[in-house]
Amino acid sequence: MAAHSRKRSRKSGLPPGTLVHLGKTRATAPLITLTEYDESDIRESVVPASELAHKICSARGTIWVNLHGLHDITILEQMGALFNLHPLVLEDILNTNQRPKLEDYGNYLYLVLKTFAYKNTVAEETLDSDQVSLVLGKNFVLTFLEGDDAQFDSVRERLHLGKGQIRKLGADFLIYSLIDAIVDSYFVILERIDEKTEALEAELIERPQPFTLHSIYRLKREGVFLRKSLWPLREVINSLQRGDSPLIASNTLLYMRDVYDHTIHIIDSVESLRDLTAGMLDIYMSSVSYRISTVMKVLTVITTIFMPLGLIASLYGMNFRYLPGLDWHWGFFAVLGVMLTISIGMLALFRWKKWL
Amino acid sequence: MAAHSRKRSRKSGLPPGTLVHLGKTRATAPLITLTEYDESDIRESVVPASELAHKICSARGTIWVNLHGLHDITILEQMGALFNLHPLVLEDILNTNQRPKLEDYGNYLYLVLKTFAYKNTVAEETLDSDQVSLVLGKNFVLTFLEGDDAQFDSVRERLHLGKGQIRKLGADFLIYSLIDAIVDSYFVILERIDEKTEALEAELIERPQPFTLHSIYRLKREGVFLRKSLWPLREVINSLQRGDSPLIASNTLLYMRDVYDHTIHIIDSVESLRDLTAGMLDIYMSSVSYRISTVMKVLTVITTIFMPLGLIASLYGMNFRYLPGLDWHWGFFAVLGVMLTISIGMLALFRWKKWL
Amino acid sequence: MAAHSRKRSRKSGLPPGTLVHLGKTRATAPLITLTEYDESDIRESVVPASELAHKICSARGTIWVNLHGLHDITILEQMGALFNLHPLVLEDILNTNQRPKLEDYGNYLYLVLKTFAYKNTVAEETLDSDQVSLVLGKNFVLTFLEGDDAQFDSVRERLHLGKGQIRKLGADFLIYSLIDAIVDSYFVILERIDEKTEALEAELIERPQPFTLHSIYRLKREGVFLRKSLWPLREVINSLQRGDSPLIASNTLLYMRDVYDHTIHIIDSVESLRDLTAGMLDIYMSSVSYRISTVMKVLTVITTIFMPLGLIASLYGMNFRYLPGLDWHWGFFAVLGVMLTISIGMLALFRWKKWL
Amino acid sequence: MAAHSRKRSRKSGLPPGTLVHLGKTRATAPLITLTEYDESDIRESVVPASELAHKICSARGTIWVNLHGLHDITILEQMGALFNLHPLVLEDILNTNQRPKLEDYGNYLYLVLKTFAYKNTVAEETLDSDQVSLVLGKNFVLTFLEGDDAQFDSVRERLHLGKGQIRKLGADFLIYSLIDAIVDSYFVILERIDEKTEALEAELIERPQPFTLHSIYRLKREGVFLRKSLWPLREVINSLQRGDSPLIASNTLLYMRDVYDHTIHIIDSVESLRDLTAGMLDIYMSSVSYRISTVMKVLTVITTIFMPLGLIASLYGMNFRYLPGLDWHWGFFAVLGVMLTISIGMLALFRWKKWL
Amino acid sequence: MAAHSRKRSRKSGLPPGTLVHLGKTRATAPLITLTEYDESDIRESVVPASELAHKICSARGTIWVNLHGLHDITILEQMGALFNLHPLVLEDILNTNQRPKLEDYGNYLYLVLKTFAYKNTVAEETLDSDQVSLVLGKNFVLTFLEGDDAQFDSVRERLHLGKGQIRKLGADFLIYSLIDAIVDSYFVILERIDEKTEALEAELIERPQPFTLHSIYRLKREGVFLRKSLWPLREVINSLQRGDSPLIASNTLLYMRDVYDHTIHIIDSVESLRDLTAGMLDIYMSSVSYRISTVMKVLTVITTIFMPLGLIASLYGMNFRYLPGLDWHWGFFAVLGVMLTISIGMLALFRWKKWL
Repeated sequence: MAAHSRKRSRKSGLPPGTLVHLGKTRATAPLITLTEYDESDIRESVVPASELAHKICSARGTIWVNLHGLHDITILEQMGALFNLHPLVLEDILNTNQRPKLEDYGNYLYLVLKTFAYKNTVAEETLDSDQVSLVLGKNFVLTFLEGDDAQFDSVRERLHLGKGQIRKLGADFLIYSLIDAIVDSYFVILERIDEKTEALEAELIERPQPFTLHSIYRLKREGVFLRKSLWPLREVINSLQRGDSPLIASNTLLYMRDVYDHTIHIIDSVESLRDLTAGMLDIYMSSVSYRISTVMKVLTVITTIFMPLGLIASLYGMNFRYLPGLDWHWGFFAVLGVMLTISIGMLALFRWKKWL
Repeated sequence: MAAHSRKRSRKSGLPPGTLVHLGKTRATAPLITLTEYDESDIRESVVPASELAHKICSARGTIWVNLHGLHDITILEQMGALFNLHPLVLEDILNTNQRPKLEDYGNYLYLVLKTFAYKNTVAEETLDSDQVSLVLGKNFVLTFLEGDDAQFDSVRERLHLGKGQIRKLGADFLIYSLIDAIVDSYFVILERIDEKTEALEAELIERPQPFTLHSIYRLKREGVFLRKSLWPLREVINSLQRGDSPLIASNTLLYMRDVYDHTIHIIDSVESLRDLTAGMLDIYMSSVSYRISTVMKVLTVITTIFMPLGLIASLYGMNFRYLPGLDWHWGFFAVLGVMLTISIGMLALFRWKKWL
Repeated sequence: MAAHSRKRSRKSGLPPGTLVHLGKTRATAPLITLTEYDESDIRESVVPASELAHKICSARGTIWVNLHGLHDITILEQMGALFNLHPLVLEDILNTNQRPKLEDYGNYLYLVLKTFAYKNTVAEETLDSDQVSLVLGKNFVLTFLEGDDAQFDSVRERLHLGKGQIRKLGADFLIYSLIDAIVDSYFVILERIDEKTEALEAELIERPQPFTLHSIYRLKREGVFLRKSLWPLREVINSLQRGDSPLIASNTLLYMRDVYDHTIHIIDSVESLRDLTAGMLDIYMSSVSYRISTVMKVLTVITTIFMPLGLIASLYGMNFRYLPGLDWHWGFFAVLGVMLTISIGMLALFRWKKWL
Repeated sequence: MAAHSRKRSRKSGLPPGTLVHLGKTRATAPLITLTEYDESDIRESVVPASELAHKICSARGTIWVNLHGLHDITILEQMGALFNLHPLVLEDILNTNQRPKLEDYGNYLYLVLKTFAYKNTVAEETLDSDQVSLVLGKNFVLTFLEGDDAQFDSVRERLHLGKGQIRKLGADFLIYSLIDAIVDSYFVILERIDEKTEALEAELIERPQPFTLHSIYRLKREGVFLRKSLWPLREVINSLQRGDSPLIASNTLLYMRDVYDHTIHIIDSVESLRDLTAGMLDIYMSSVSYRISTVMKVLTVITTIFMPLGLIASLYGMNFRYLPGLDWHWGFFAVLGVMLTISIGMLALFRWKKWL
Repeated sequence: MAAHSRKRSRKSGLPPGTLVHLGKTRATAPLITLTEYDESDIRESVVPASELAHKICSARGTIWVNLHGLHDITILEQMGALFNLHPLVLEDILNTNQRPKLEDYGNYLYLVLKTFAYKNTVAEETLDSDQVSLVLGKNFVLTFLEGDDAQFDSVRERLHLGKGQIRKLGADFLIYSLIDAIVDSYFVILERIDEKTEALEAELIERPQPFTLHSIYRLKREGVFLRKSLWPLREVINSLQRGDSPLIASNTLLYMRDVYDHTIHIIDSVESLRDLTAGMLDIYMSSVSYRISTVMKVLTVITTIFMPLGLIASLYGMNFRYLPGLDWHWGFFAVLGVMLTISIGMLALFRWKKWL
C-alpha cells in the first residue's frame, strides 16, 4: 500500500506530456478489445496493435475500446492520435498512482477510478489497488487498465445479451454501466472488511493478543488507504450526476445519481471504519490493563498471605536457646493453627475489599 | 449491524433496474393495505395482489397504499406500472441497505428512511434497522416496508378518528405525518441509549469490569451505526422543509420544519454519544490504572515490611556456633521487639509518603 | 442531564399541535404577569387566568406577558387564541426539551432559549437546564417559562426605573434586553466551570484520585451538554442580528450584534472546555502511570537487595555438618559484613542507573 | 488565564451601554497622548483630561489619541462625545474580556485586538493577555488600552522620524501600522512557545518526570487560550483586507493583505501546537509504560533466579534426621554448585527470550 | 524545524517594505543567471550585479532571471526598480519564513513556494525547508531563492534542448514548468517518509523500544511541519488553475490543473500520515502494555509456585522438638514429593486459566 507514491520521483523533471509508465509492470501483453454496437447489432474483436487505426476508422455505432496492459507506449500514442486526446491525458493514463478525478476536455471527459482487491501472500492478505482510466466521447468509450478487468465482464455480457437499455442508449450509458460495475466491486471489499472487523471484535472480547493488535493496525491502515483513494470519488461522481457536461444525456443522469448514492454509502462505511478501529484499539489497551490488574491482584494476594506465614516459620527456625514453646509437644500444630487463622483472615479481608 | 453492506455483492454486475431483493427476508406474506379518504369519508381495505390494479383505479380522494413485505417482486412491478415509477425506484425499494435519501422525479418524490429497534437475543440486545420507502405523488402516498409497521398505527388511527387536520389536508400532510411518526420513534431508541449510558456510568464509578468495557464498545458501535444511518436524514428533511417541490403545499412546510427540528435534535444527541463513549473509555482505562497503582502499593508495602523481618529471622537461623545473644534468655523477645520497631517505622514512613 | 430526551416517547404518535406538557412538572401555580409601558408610563399586574382576555384587549403601548408555569394548558390555549399563535408554537412551548431555535411566522417571531443553573443535591452539584420561549410581535413580547425567572428581574427593574433606552424603544428592544439577560446568565455558569476546572487542575497536580477522575468526567459531560444546548444559539442570534425580520428595527440590530458577540464568546469557551477535559484525562492517566512506575521501582529495589541477603542467611542455615566458617568465632559478623557490602553495592548500582 | 470570563457576571443585568470597567484594574493614572501630524509636521503632547475637548477641537492633520488606563470612566465619556462613538463601543472598550472583533459603524470602524505577554511569577511563567481597542475614523485613530503600550513605540518612532510612507498616508495607514505592530508582537510569543516546546521534547527524551507532564499540560492550555483568542482575528483582518469599508484606501489594502498573511501564519502555528502537545502527552505515557516494563523485567528476573535458590537452601535447612548428603564433606559446595548452575541457566533463558 | 518563526521578532517594529533578510544566511555569493529565449534561440549568462540593468534592458524574447542568494539587498533593490515590483514583494522575498501564497499585483503575479530536503546531521536526519519566490510578468519570470536550486536544472535543460512546448509557449508556461518541478520534488520527500513509516511499522511489530517511540514522534512532527507548509499550497495552485489572471494563457491552464492534482495528492498523503502516526503510537503503547502483562504473569507464576514450597521447607526448618516425621527416614523425600505435587497442581491451574 505504501507504494502509492513510489517511483514517482523517477519522473521528476521530465517535460509534461512525456509518456513514462509509472506503476507496477505486469507480464501480460497489451490486449486491445474493440466492441461496436447499436440497438440491433454488436461486434467484438481483439485487435492487434498494427490494425488499430484501420479498425477504429471503419467502426460504426457506439464504440468501446478496452486497452488491457499499458506498458506499450506506442499503442497509447496511436489511440491518442486517433481519438485526439491531450498529451496530459495520455501521461495520466500511464501514471497509475493517481487520485480519482474527472477532467472535462470539452469534446471528451477523462475519468480516473481505482479498483481494489485483496491479494493473498503467504503471511497475510494485503489490499491492492489498480487504476482504471475511462474516456467518454460523443460516441465512444475508451477504457485503459493494467490489472484485472473482471469487473467489466458483467457489462460485456449485458451488451451481448442486449438486456435492459444498454444497447438502446449511447456511450454515456455505457460509461455509467462501467462506473457502476466498478463502484459495485467496492462493496465486495467492504464486506471483507466487515468480516474482518467482526472477527477482530470477537477476538478482542475472548483473548486479545499481540497478533490482534497488528490486525487492528492493518485494518486501520486499510481504512486510511481506502479513505484517501475513495474520498475524491465523491466529487467525481457528483459532478457527473450534476449534468455539467453535454456528453451525458439527461436520462442517464438519474442513473448517475444512483451511483452517487452508492459512492456516498461506501465513503460513509469507510469513515465509520475509522471510528471502529479507534474504538478497538482502546478496547485492546483497556483489556490488557484490566488483565494486568487481575494478575497483580493474584500476585499481591499470594504474597500477602505467604509472607507472614514464612516469617512465623522463620521465627521458630531461629537458633535461640530459649524459644517459647519449642519443647511443647503441640507447638508445631499450634503454629500451624496460627498460620491457618492468619490465612483465613487475610482471605476474608481480601474478599471484603472485593479483590477476590 | 455489520450486515449493512452484506449481500450487496450478490447484485454486482446486474443491469440497473433489475429487481433483486437485498436484505433480510422475512416469513410473512406481503400485505397490501389500501386507504382512501377525504374530509368526509375514509375506507381501508386489505387488497389481494390480484385485485390491486382494479382497486387502485377505482379509488378516490387521497390514496395511501402500504405494502408490508417486499419479497414478492411481481406486486412491486404492478405498483411500479400503476403509479408510473422509475425502475431505479423499484430497485431501491428492494435494496433495503440504503442511506436515507430523497429523490425528486418531477411528478413524485421518492424517500428512503430507516427505522430502528432493539432486538433481544439470548446474550445481549442488538440494534436492528429496517428500511421504509415512501413515495409521494399528487394525491397518493405509497409506503413500502419489510419489518414492523407499528409506527404507522398512530397515523392510521388519527385518519380513522379524523382528529386534527389530517383528513382535511392532502397527501403531503399524510406523508408528513408518516415521517413524523418515524422520527418520533427514534426518540424511543435515544431514551434506551440514555438509560444504558447512565447505567454504564454508574457501573464505571462503582466497579469497572471487562463486561463494562464491552458494553461501552457496543454503545460506541451503536452510535457509529446510528450516526451513519441518521446523518443523511438531515439533508433529506431539510430539502423537504425548504419547499423545493410543488408536491408539498406551503402550509405543510411549517410542519416539515418541525420534523426538521426533531431530526437535528436527534442527530445532536447521537453526536454527543460519541463524545460520551470516548470519555467513558478513558475513565475505564484510568480507573483500571488507578487500581493497578493501589494494588502495587499494597504489594510493595507488604514486601517492604516483611522482607527485612524475614532476613533478621534467617540471620538467627544460621548455624554459626557463636551468634551474639543466642544463649541470652530474652534474645527471642529482643528480636521480636526489633522487628516490631522496624514494622512501625516502615508504616510511619509509608504514611508520611502518603502511600497509605 | 441525560433526561433531555426523556418522556419524549410519551408523545409519539399524537397529531401535531396536540398540547402535551413534556418536561419537568413543578408545583407552583401558573403566574401570568402583564406589563404595559410606553415612554411615559408603566403598569405591571398579575393577571388571573379568567381575566386574561379582557386585560390584554384593553392593554396599550408595548405589552409584555410573562407566563411562569406551563402545566395549565387552558391558559396557553387562551394566549394562542389572543395572539393568533400557530398550534405548532403552542406545542413547542410545552415541549421543554428543545434545542434553541428561531422561527419566523411572518407577523411574529418564535424563539426558544435555554437557561442553566447548578442545582446542589446532597452528593454533588448537577447542571440543570430550563427552557424559555419568547414570542416577538409588532408591539408585544410573550415569554413562557417553567423554571426560575430571576434572570428577568433586572430587565423588569430597568423598565420600572426607565433607565436607558428601554422604555423609549419598542418590543424589539425589550426582547433584546430579555435575550441579553439570558445570555449574560450563561457567564455565571462559565465562571463556575472555570473555578471547577482550576480546582481540578490543582488536584491533578497535587494528588490525583478516583474522585478526581469522576469530577473530570462530570465536567466533560457538562461540556457536552452545554455544547449541545448552546451550539444552535449561534445560528439563532446570528439570524436575529442579520436583520432578516422587519419586526426588529435597525437600531436594535446593533444591540443584537452585541449579544451575538457574547454568544460566540460563550460557545468558544465551551469548545475550549472540551480540549481541557481531554487534556486533564491524559494528565490523570499519565500521573497514575508515573506513580505505578515509582512504586514498581521501590518494590524492585527492595526485592533486589533483600533476596540475595536472604539467600546468604539461608545458606548458613543449612544443616550440613561441614560448612566453612561455622565454627569461626567471627563468622556471623563476616556474613553481616558481606551482606552490608552487597547492599551498598546494590544501592550504588541503582543510583548509577538513576533509579533512586 | 482562566480569568477570561471572570467578573463578567458582575455586569449581568445592567442596561446595555452602561459603562462598567471589567478586567484587571491597574494602578497607573490614565494617560492621554495626542499626536497630530501631516507630511510636513508632527506634534505630540500628553493632554490632561480637563483640556481634552479643547485640544482635540483645535487639532489638525491626522490625529491619534492614545488612552492608556481605562478605569476613569469620565474620560471615556468625553471621548465618546467628542468623536461621536456609540454607547456600545464605549461599553466594549471597558469590557476588556472580549474576543477580537471588527464592527463597522459607518463613519468609523471599531476594532478589538488582544496582546499577549509572559509574566514571570515566582513559581512559573504565565501567559497574560490585554485588550487593545482601536477606532478608525476619517482622519483620526483612537487607541484604548490598559496594559503595556510598548508595542506602539516603534510606530511612534517612525512617525517622528518620518521614515517610509507613514506620514504621507492618512489615518488608515496609521491603523495598519498599529495592527501590524500588534501582530508582529505575537511572533515573540510564538518564539517563546517554540523554545518551550523544544525544551520539553528534549526533557521527554532524556528523563520524563511529573514536572514534564505539568509543563506539557500548561503548554496545551496556553495553546487552547491562544487559539480561542486568535482564531477570530482571521476574520477580523480578512474583512479589513477585503476593502469592505471606504475608510481604508485601496493602496493600504495591499498592506492589510500582508498583515492577513502574518495572521494566518500565526494561527497555523497555534494549530500545530495542538498536534504537538497531544503527541508529547502520548510520548510521555509511552515512555513511562516502557519504563514500567523495564523495571518489571528486572524484578521478575531477580525473583525468578533467587526464589529457587532460596528454596534449595531452605530444603537443606529442614531438620529431618536423614537428609541425603548432610554428612558429606563437600555437600555445601555441591549445593552451591547446583545453585550456580541454576542461576546461569536462568540467565541464559532470559537472554534467549531477549529479556536482558 | 522549530526555527520557522525564529528571528521574526528581529523585524518587529520596522516600517513595512523595509528590506531585512530574515532566514538562514548562507556563505555563497549571490548568483544572477539571465536566460533569454524564443522558439528559435536561447542565451544564458551569469550577470554581475553591476551589469544587471544594462543586460536586462537589452534582453529579448521571454526572460528568466534567477537570483540565487538573497543577502545582498542592493541587487534586490535594483531588480525591484527594473521590474517595477512593490516594496512589500521585495520584503516578502527576503523574509524566507512565509507560507506559500499567491498575490496578484495586476501586471505581475507574486508566488511563494517552499522546497524541502532531508539534511543528515551526525545523530539524525532532519527535514529542512527553503523558500522560493517566483514573479510572473507579461514576458518575464523572476525566481529568488536562497538554498539549493537543483530542482530547476531539469527545466533549464529542457529549455536548452528545446524539447516539448517549453520554448514555443511564453513566460506562463515557464512558470508552470518551474512550479511543476518544485511540486515533483515533494514526491521525493513523501517517498522517504513512506520508507520511514514502513521501517517503523516493522520495528513496532518486532521489538518496540524507546528509540522507536522517538522516531514516531519525529515522524509526527515532520507531518505537522509539512502539513503547515503545504496546506496553503492547495489554494495557491487552485487559484492559478482557475485562470483568474490574464497573465496565464488558457492552454497553460490545463497544465496548471495537472499540477493542482499532484498538489492535492501530496496533501492527502500528508494527511494520512497523521492518522498513521497516531495509530503507531497506539500500537506502541498497546505492545508495551501487553509485554508488561506477560512479564507480570511470569512473575506471578514463579511467586505463586515457590512461595508455598518455601513455606513448607521453612516449617520443617523450625526447631520444635516434636515435629511429625522428622525422624522418619523418608521424611525428606515425602516433603519433596508434596512439593512436586503442589508445583504440578499450580502449573495445571495456570494452564487451565490460560495464563501459560
